[in-house]
Amino acid sequence: MTDTATLAASPLELASRLIACESVTPATGAVFGCLESMLDPLGFDVTRFVCGEAPDGPVENLHAIRRPLGDAGRHFAFAGHLDVVPPGKGWASDPFEPVVRGDLLHGRGAVDMKGSIASFVAAVAEIPRETGTISLIITGDEEGPAVYGTRALIDLMQTQDTVPDLCLVGEPTSVSRLGDMVKIGRRGSVNMWIRVAGQQGHVAYPHLADNPIPKLVAILAEIEQMVLDNGTDWFQPSNIEITDLAVGNPAHNVIPAGAEARISIRFNDLHSGSSLIELISGIAGAMGGSVEAKISGEAFLTPPGELSSMIADAIRAETGLETELSTTGGTSDARFLSRICPVVEFGLCNATMHKLDEAVAIADLDTLARIYRRVVLGALVGTS
Amino acid sequence: MTDTATLAASPLELASRLIACESVTPATGAVFGCLESMLDPLGFDVTRFVCGEAPDGPVENLHAIRRPLGDAGRHFAFAGHLDVVPPGKGWASDPFEPVVRGDLLHGRGAVDMKGSIASFVAAVAEIPRETGTISLIITGDEEGPAVYGTRALIDLMQTQDTVPDLCLVGEPTSVSRLGDMVKIGRRGSVNMWIRVAGQQGHVAYPHLADNPIPKLVAILAEIEQMVLDNGTDWFQPSNIEITDLAVGNPAHNVIPAGAEARISIRFNDLHSGSSLIELISGIAGAMGGSVEAKISGEAFLTPPGELSSMIADAIRAETGLETELSTTGGTSDARFLSRICPVVEFGLCNATMHKLDEAVAIADLDTLARIYRRVVLGALVGTS
Ligand SMILES: [Zn+2]
Ligand SMILES: [Zn+2]
Repeated sequence: MTDTATLAASPLELASRLIACESVTPATGAVFGCLESMLDPLGFDVTRFVCGEAPDGPVENLHAIRRPLGDAGRHFAFAGHLDVVPPGKGWASDPFEPVVRGDLLHGRGAVDMKGSIASFVAAVAEIPRETGTISLIITGDEEGPAVYGTRALIDLMQTQDTVPDLCLVGEPTSVSRLGDMVKIGRRGSVNMWIRVAGQQGHVAYPHLADNPIPKLVAILAEIEQMVLDNGTDWFQPSNIEITDLAVGNPAHNVIPAGAEARISIRFNDLHSGSSLIELISGIAGAMGGSVEAKISGEAFLTPPGELSSMIADAIRAETGLETELSTTGGTSDARFLSRICPVVEFGLCNATMHKLDEAVAIADLDTLARIYRRVVLGALVGTS
Repeated sequence: MTDTATLAASPLELASRLIACESVTPATGAVFGCLESMLDPLGFDVTRFVCGEAPDGPVENLHAIRRPLGDAGRHFAFAGHLDVVPPGKGWASDPFEPVVRGDLLHGRGAVDMKGSIASFVAAVAEIPRETGTISLIITGDEEGPAVYGTRALIDLMQTQDTVPDLCLVGEPTSVSRLGDMVKIGRRGSVNMWIRVAGQQGHVAYPHLADNPIPKLVAILAEIEQMVLDNGTDWFQPSNIEITDLAVGNPAHNVIPAGAEARISIRFNDLHSGSSLIELISGIAGAMGGSVEAKISGEAFLTPPGELSSMIADAIRAETGLETELSTTGGTSDARFLSRICPVVEFGLCNATMHKLDEAVAIADLDTLARIYRRVVLGALVGTS
């Protein structure tokens, strides 16, 4: 740690600078330069690289690491993203011009998750270099297909031998009050298309045709009455939703040649994407259907332990709240990071994420920086 | 009957003249003038009128009646249509330029059913006026929605007090050989749209949504396992086909707000359109669905009796065939006429109807004229 660290800008100022750099997913350029300019004076070695091509790219990624001068010690990482979802129309002010109104800082990315990144930078600025190894794993492709983002960063870390011991993902996990919820896992997600082929014909002569719809209905009826599991200590039961039906037959007197349904499964760690594809394919195949599938993410769980306890302790110390360890909600890049080390997600309140007039309480930015500081210290030296 | 009757043109010549008048459904104009010019010299009083507006109209209808000078006697009617389905592309010759190649007369309407009308006119030309009352009930809207056609003619007949005692519909009912099949009834037809409304939401939070698809699947599964009946002496079992499924949800992670299925029921005379609507509405309603329905036609049956026996006798006398009394196939205008008198359908071979290069065997036109002549004589004076 140098003297400049104590002169670091406030989380509010850092967040405002990041918001001012427009960075709709997939993001590259200025917003990464902005973050680099904050990390350089804190002693971080910064690596930036661009992956992929349109339409899912190009995507910029940033890896920053600061090691003690002597023994590397433990390695704590913060992961996040600088890309934001498109602002949409109807904001009270320019979504890329950060503005304080009352107690709130407004701007796209205020809570998801430029505000969290700013709070982490402010926290690190107050942690001496010799405390341990700290890294930031920052992508420009979390809100999009996530093809060229965190996965490429993991490749880099494995090549550089900079895989961390613990990782905190700064997604906005708080619900009503900062600190009320921490995510220790996420359900997996897989979409499947179930197709049944038949033989087209006239409704007046059904014996000359083969209607695919009753077979599809039978497949779906069997899927609907299936119980995947009853949940686990940490996960709610896995759930199947039928999200679409499509035949596309405009002729009232024609038996169609094919029928299709789409299902979406959110599953806990009792299943994998491939075990579910096998299950559904078996049901569909027995009734003449076929299945095409796309796994969006596998389930992961970081069982309650050292990392979640340190975060819960830090939240309690700074806010007085007993946080809830949860596995609800959609997927995040934590699903990739969980393959290399224990991962827990914790960040700002998510009420306005992805919405018009996204905003963060200025007080929350400061409190979050103090919580993050406690977590890092706890992880690196065992005290917070 | 006048002496001119014996000078009537051959069925081949009459059919050719009708085919030459292009009359894609809905039809008006020249083709009706052409038929009128054939009936005038035979002593018919002809009434022509136009009903409806685009897109289902305008439709021309023609009613022709010839009564004996003295006692009206029995009244026999022939019903048919001068409209034709669109020819489509790929004919060997102009579909509206009648041409004889080998033993066949080619042209749109050759069998369905300008050829039958020509044969009936030729038959009537040889029947003396004093034999009894003969009428022709001819519409330009049988191949279309049939809104402004035969129903309007029935209104006219009821107003004019010209409802016949017996009616022969000249649809092409023969299959392999002229005379092998006569239709004494037709199944009814009804289409229904089953809709289930739900509450849109995200697949990750199904408790905040209400997925309509499982309810629709349950409704359809119940409909699929239902047996409407086992058929009757004269009808095959009623049959339900699910012909379409539609949700139209492009978002993989969204539970849709609504789901729809379309079913088509072909039913025998154990049911009516409204009894089936009530049945399906009950099933759908019990599971939160609603039903919209369109009855295309009610089932009808003219039980085997005087009219079908006379036709079978005439076929046997002219061809040696034992005809089959059937209720198979789609709907025809006989469904409307069956409400006012006994109706049987009999006409040319249907192999080329509605197809490219529609054609009729010239010999069949002559044989059909002789069969029709025997039927009319049998109906009016009890001898054939
Ligand atoms: Zn995010
Ligand atoms: Zn026809």
